[in-house]
Amino acid sequence: MKRLNWGMIGGGEGSQIGPAHRLGAQADGNFVLAAGALDHRPDEGRAYAQRLGVPADRAYGDWTEMLAGEKDRDDRVDLVTVATPNSTHFEITKSFLEAGFNVLCEKPMTMTVEEGEDIVKIAQATGKICAVNYCYSAYPMVREMRQMVATGQVGKVRLIVTNFSHGHHGDATDADNPRVRWRYDPAMAGVSGQFADCGIHALHMASFIAGDEVRSLSADFASTISSRTLEDDAMVNFRMEGGTVGRLWTSSVAIGRQHGFDIQVFGETGGLRWRSEDPNQVYYTPVGGRTQIMEKGEAGLSDEATRLSRVAIAHPEGFPLAVANIYVDIAAKLRGQPSGALPTAADGVRSMAAVHAAVASAKSDGAWVDARPPMFR
Amino acid sequence: MKRLNWGMIGGGEGSQIGPAHRLGAQADGNFVLAAGALDHRPDEGRAYAQRLGVPADRAYGDWTEMLAGEKDRDDRVDLVTVATPNSTHFEITKSFLEAGFNVLCEKPMTMTVEEGEDIVKIAQATGKICAVNYCYSAYPMVREMRQMVATGQVGKVRLIVTNFSHGHHGDATDADNPRVRWRYDPAMAGVSGQFADCGIHALHMASFIAGDEVRSLSADFASTISSRTLEDDAMVNFRMEGGTVGRLWTSSVAIGRQHGFDIQVFGETGGLRWRSEDPNQVYYTPVGGRTQIMEKGEAGLSDEATRLSRVAIAHPEGFPLAVANIYVDIAAKLRGQPSGALPTAADGVRSMAAVHAAVASAKSDGAWVDARPPMFR
Amino acid sequence: MKRLNWGMIGGGEGSQIGPAHRLGAQADGNFVLAAGALDHRPDEGRAYAQRLGVPADRAYGDWTEMLAGEKDRDDRVDLVTVATPNSTHFEITKSFLEAGFNVLCEKPMTMTVEEGEDIVKIAQATGKICAVNYCYSAYPMVREMRQMVATGQVGKVRLIVTNFSHGHHGDATDADNPRVRWRYDPAMAGVSGQFADCGIHALHMASFIAGDEVRSLSADFASTISSRTLEDDAMVNFRMEGGTVGRLWTSSVAIGRQHGFDIQVFGETGGLRWRSEDPNQVYYTPVGGRTQIMEKGEAGLSDEATRLSRVAIAHPEGFPLAVANIYVDIAAKLRGQPSGALPTAADGVRSMAAVHAAVASAKSDGAWVDARPPMFR
Amino acid sequence: MKRLNWGMIGGGEGSQIGPAHRLGAQADGNFVLAAGALDHRPDEGRAYAQRLGVPADRAYGDWTEMLAGEKDRDDRVDLVTVATPNSTHFEITKSFLEAGFNVLCEKPMTMTVEEGEDIVKIAQATGKICAVNYCYSAYPMVREMRQMVATGQVGKVRLIVTNFSHGHHGDATDADNPRVRWRYDPAMAGVSGQFADCGIHALHMASFIAGDEVRSLSADFASTISSRTLEDDAMVNFRMEGGTVGRLWTSSVAIGRQHGFDIQVFGETGGLRWRSEDPNQVYYTPVGGRTQIMEKGEAGLSDEATRLSRVAIAHPEGFPLAVANIYVDIAAKLRGQPSGALPTAADGVRSMAAVHAAVASAKSDGAWVDARPPMFR
Repeated sequence: MKRLNWGMIGGGEGSQIGPAHRLGAQADGNFVLAAGALDHRPDEGRAYAQRLGVPADRAYGDWTEMLAGEKDRDDRVDLVTVATPNSTHFEITKSFLEAGFNVLCEKPMTMTVEEGEDIVKIAQATGKICAVNYCYSAYPMVREMRQMVATGQVGKVRLIVTNFSHGHHGDATDADNPRVRWRYDPAMAGVSGQFADCGIHALHMASFIAGDEVRSLSADFASTISSRTLEDDAMVNFRMEGGTVGRLWTSSVAIGRQHGFDIQVFGETGGLRWRSEDPNQVYYTPVGGRTQIMEKGEAGLSDEATRLSRVAIAHPEGFPLAVANIYVDIAAKLRGQPSGALPTAADGVRSMAAVHAAVASAKSDGAWVDARPPMFR
Repeated sequence: MKRLNWGMIGGGEGSQIGPAHRLGAQADGNFVLAAGALDHRPDEGRAYAQRLGVPADRAYGDWTEMLAGEKDRDDRVDLVTVATPNSTHFEITKSFLEAGFNVLCEKPMTMTVEEGEDIVKIAQATGKICAVNYCYSAYPMVREMRQMVATGQVGKVRLIVTNFSHGHHGDATDADNPRVRWRYDPAMAGVSGQFADCGIHALHMASFIAGDEVRSLSADFASTISSRTLEDDAMVNFRMEGGTVGRLWTSSVAIGRQHGFDIQVFGETGGLRWRSEDPNQVYYTPVGGRTQIMEKGEAGLSDEATRLSRVAIAHPEGFPLAVANIYVDIAAKLRGQPSGALPTAADGVRSMAAVHAAVASAKSDGAWVDARPPMFR
Repeated sequence: MKRLNWGMIGGGEGSQIGPAHRLGAQADGNFVLAAGALDHRPDEGRAYAQRLGVPADRAYGDWTEMLAGEKDRDDRVDLVTVATPNSTHFEITKSFLEAGFNVLCEKPMTMTVEEGEDIVKIAQATGKICAVNYCYSAYPMVREMRQMVATGQVGKVRLIVTNFSHGHHGDATDADNPRVRWRYDPAMAGVSGQFADCGIHALHMASFIAGDEVRSLSADFASTISSRTLEDDAMVNFRMEGGTVGRLWTSSVAIGRQHGFDIQVFGETGGLRWRSEDPNQVYYTPVGGRTQIMEKGEAGLSDEATRLSRVAIAHPEGFPLAVANIYVDIAAKLRGQPSGALPTAADGVRSMAAVHAAVASAKSDGAWVDARPPMFR
Repeated sequence: MKRLNWGMIGGGEGSQIGPAHRLGAQADGNFVLAAGALDHRPDEGRAYAQRLGVPADRAYGDWTEMLAGEKDRDDRVDLVTVATPNSTHFEITKSFLEAGFNVLCEKPMTMTVEEGEDIVKIAQATGKICAVNYCYSAYPMVREMRQMVATGQVGKVRLIVTNFSHGHHGDATDADNPRVRWRYDPAMAGVSGQFADCGIHALHMASFIAGDEVRSLSADFASTISSRTLEDDAMVNFRMEGGTVGRLWTSSVAIGRQHGFDIQVFGETGGLRWRSEDPNQVYYTPVGGRTQIMEKGEAGLSDEATRLSRVAIAHPEGFPLAVANIYVDIAAKLRGQPSGALPTAADGVRSMAAVHAAVASAKSDGAWVDARPPMFR
């Protein structure tokens, strides 16, 4: 299987996100890093790319240079990953899509709903992949839950309860730490803090598993550390198009929770529960029956779950390989092979609309507001 | 230690609640069943009481007969437990309090806020005990959490997240089962279904542990099974007098949850987590530190937690002995011994005010409303 | 239901075991404390009994006085509980059985196999109940496992793996503490330390659930704290009459384990797992299928499990009510009602034979030895 | 960082082990697959290697061809992974070591102790790396435990209790399945079944964490499915050089256990617990204190644990990345960078000696035997 050419923008030396994407792209041997503009400092970016094995002529100083350099090559990169600061995602993603590249964009895809709608339209027009890195959706057992819902194994979904809470920003004495502070500063983070940072993963997953979309929501935001402008804790109630009731709690001051991203799905004939800290199990309860522990790798799972698992039952697979599964699916699509439910630009713009809706609701004492981007109303 | 005389109203043969109270009263040898009006059918009640060892002259046909029979006895009952249908709690409790008896009333104490305020006033005027059976608050490790908060071990409480969810009413094909249906029928259950039935325990516990009271709330109610008039799922956001943010989810359609009553308390310097299905442990995380597993019975717990535990560390004590702890505390009070934080009529009326507030908020699209009874505003 | 008269020997003021038995006998209203010889100091014992409500003429100074006083009464006690120091169990149990009393004896029933065989014969001859307090066997879900095995739900049992390990004697600097030291001193504890103290509960449970008996064993004992003569850690491999392989680990130096009494039963068509710290669940896995979480109180359990549970599903019931279940079963037997699989003198003598066999094996470098009392060979 | 050249022998198309090693070698970008003899069918092996990107001249038909082809190249492979059938490990490993290659050999390194001693000597003589894939030892939190023991955080280790049990061979009706049957057939598996297959991982880990070696052992083997010649369940008691007591249970008929590889380490001043199904946590209990949950990625861990983790706290990392950590350490050694406690040929031969010792002990009714290879006595 020939490796695909991969290019990366951002993810320079010392970043957290760079290694995660490189591991994701390379772990299964699907992609080879062929080009990159890895750093906002051109020389450092070029040097680092070459240390990572990128030929000198494809080790670019910035993304515009990369776009210019790649677009006319016969062997141009099959996929560009955008892992730059949030405010630059829109422009870079747009530019590469317009030039006919496939793109995997880090979350958030854009800062505004309008920008998000632009991306959706461009992706549709070009027919190229525009994926967004909602990587939790690529865990095998998350895919299994989506399949179970789709095939009616829990009946019509009545209720989804999800949360994404941690306590790593709970120390007020550390609140001025620059790594923490920017997330609660509108100048840097935009209109929302914790909900945009973490809650949105949970909201995406609710839609992903339900196979349905959020229609309206009501939010209660709190800045429990008073020096913060943006919320560090939020509760969002929502309703989906099909009538499903949703409850989403997210927090960064939940001291003692580490990576508390969980979801429960309750349907007419059964319930499901999944925890991101133990991602290889799903707890499934048929109505009137006992809870069953489903294991990644067990016999009888869907093709989707099986395809995205590498090792035998009860050999845990973790977060980096969920990221890798996003690349597995992109590679499969590029090769015309069976692939799965990749999160796309439509998910990206829906998230942005939900963030703005939640902010508006929270400012209006929890009034219910439309959570959809105009293009999807 | 002489046993105290105990009388019971309701809890007839075949009821669930009767054995729970008898076990609670008798387990530690504090009370002896001396009188009773156990059944709405006078003869059955008298006969059953006698089979339980009550002398014939104190085996009464109904509560009015019992009140008349007991009030002038020298050996009259030291405590009356009221475990009759909800709508009768107010009248019976009021009557016995006014006659100078100590009362333990099942939850809900009354059906209206006005009735609740009456009970508070009468109890204050008589100086008698009027306890309400929020028995979860009598688990040793719940008392420990209260002490930890009171002594500043988690700092000022920023956030409380609690839920009380189960799936035992999640089968729509069983929704007409009379044991289930009445809870969602306003004619029988009053203004609220699941929130009044279960959620209110969680709200009480938030106050109990925080040592603070709920001031305002916003509610989102849903009847996920469409034949139901009252809610089977509710989310309640609240604020406490001291500013603490609260989040409470309750459900009876959460298929796969059995008795999902949990609470998390997040303060400035630490977090606490407790689950009613594993009531003998508390997970405590100091800010910046590791989560520690606290065990009922470990060295160094508060007197309150130690006093209410009977067996050594890691020998689990369960729900019936939490009920028993309510009786332990009442007995201690009656004997003038050190006793703990017994839930009282004030808690009863606050619960009722919160129920009515949540109903009003849910009907107003989640508007924030005052959750306090007028007497406590 | 008339209460039965109950007498207790030992369990004086300040003991741990006294309250546990009183709670056990009284919680369900089956027994009333009618007589007692509660303390080795006659006056203290008489005074304490009277404070507990025993009439003066039945508050005895010692067990011989109690035997003399009770044996000719028409209302003599229906059951005598023996909760004195271990070395006295044999003489007291024997004497009361011979006088026609029913007895519940604390574990160990005797110190030697010969004494144990005596008790079995006397109990058979008199037709009286001689129960031994292997109270863990009275948890509802343990009874359920026994029923599942008996009715073939896991097939022929191939393998049982059990352990009873804690770390409460793991502090060498506390090893001279009298409460700890005696357990490792042959002058006070007899031939075995941790295996006789805790391991024997696990061995009993293996037999209890399997419905089979231990035939032979091989033991490895260690005194990991060198000042100890008797073992504080032991591994015992065994074989049952029906061929089942057994593995039993017990320790008192397993720092971090609190009350680590667990059992796993593996049959031809399924496996079972139970933990004493979470006694209300059993994990059941049919061969080739998913693990199912069975809950105390769920629909469809055996009569045995249902009868010994008091509150609804997922309302935990703990250790004190397991002790109470022993009394529930004795009361049922005394009343001629359906009762369960009460541990008896036969279990007591088998335990004693196993202890002596393990000691002999450990001294012979793990040689396999017959673990049965001569009378059962 | 220039990639190292990597060669693989075995791991052909459709094998489980091939993808695991490729992911392990490539995930972190340390190695590039430069040569391979992937299949016992020469043409298939050559074709598959080329599909994986190996140049045609380094896609070999068998290992002898590969040895001949690589040994004189300037760019010869920096590491050879041997993942062929067990009985061939010795010859291939020996040959490549002797030719001056670094080798990572799958477990078991050899079939006999003598062969194992040969490998140790050759590796010493050549100064090349001969690693054995005890990959569980490369989990970050396993390394952390080793560091904690080494730095005295639990005091002298008294006791280690470990088990590696699953139920995937528990279905007797599937026992003739060729994928299962060979493991219990001496003609194919050698002298031991489950102990050699799984138990040996647990025994290695005991030594790895303790920083000590097994001196003697006593084993009890059982073939609980009677058609099996070799054991499917084993208990091994052992003693380490420093006096630590060990208990190891391994089973393949433990229906309901999935990948039950756990270890508990009990020292004079603390206890540790780790489970391979939740590999990112360690439960640590200081003597007399509360159990603390340690998390991969938390602040303050050893360099060793930190170096082998890729993503933030509570983002789980699983089995494939433990394998990858073996490659991380080999790459570091090859580059002269700080590296960790890689399992080597000495571990391989000790394992083989322990297997043979356990077989001998089991045949002698559990007699204690020396578990060390002669060279280390």
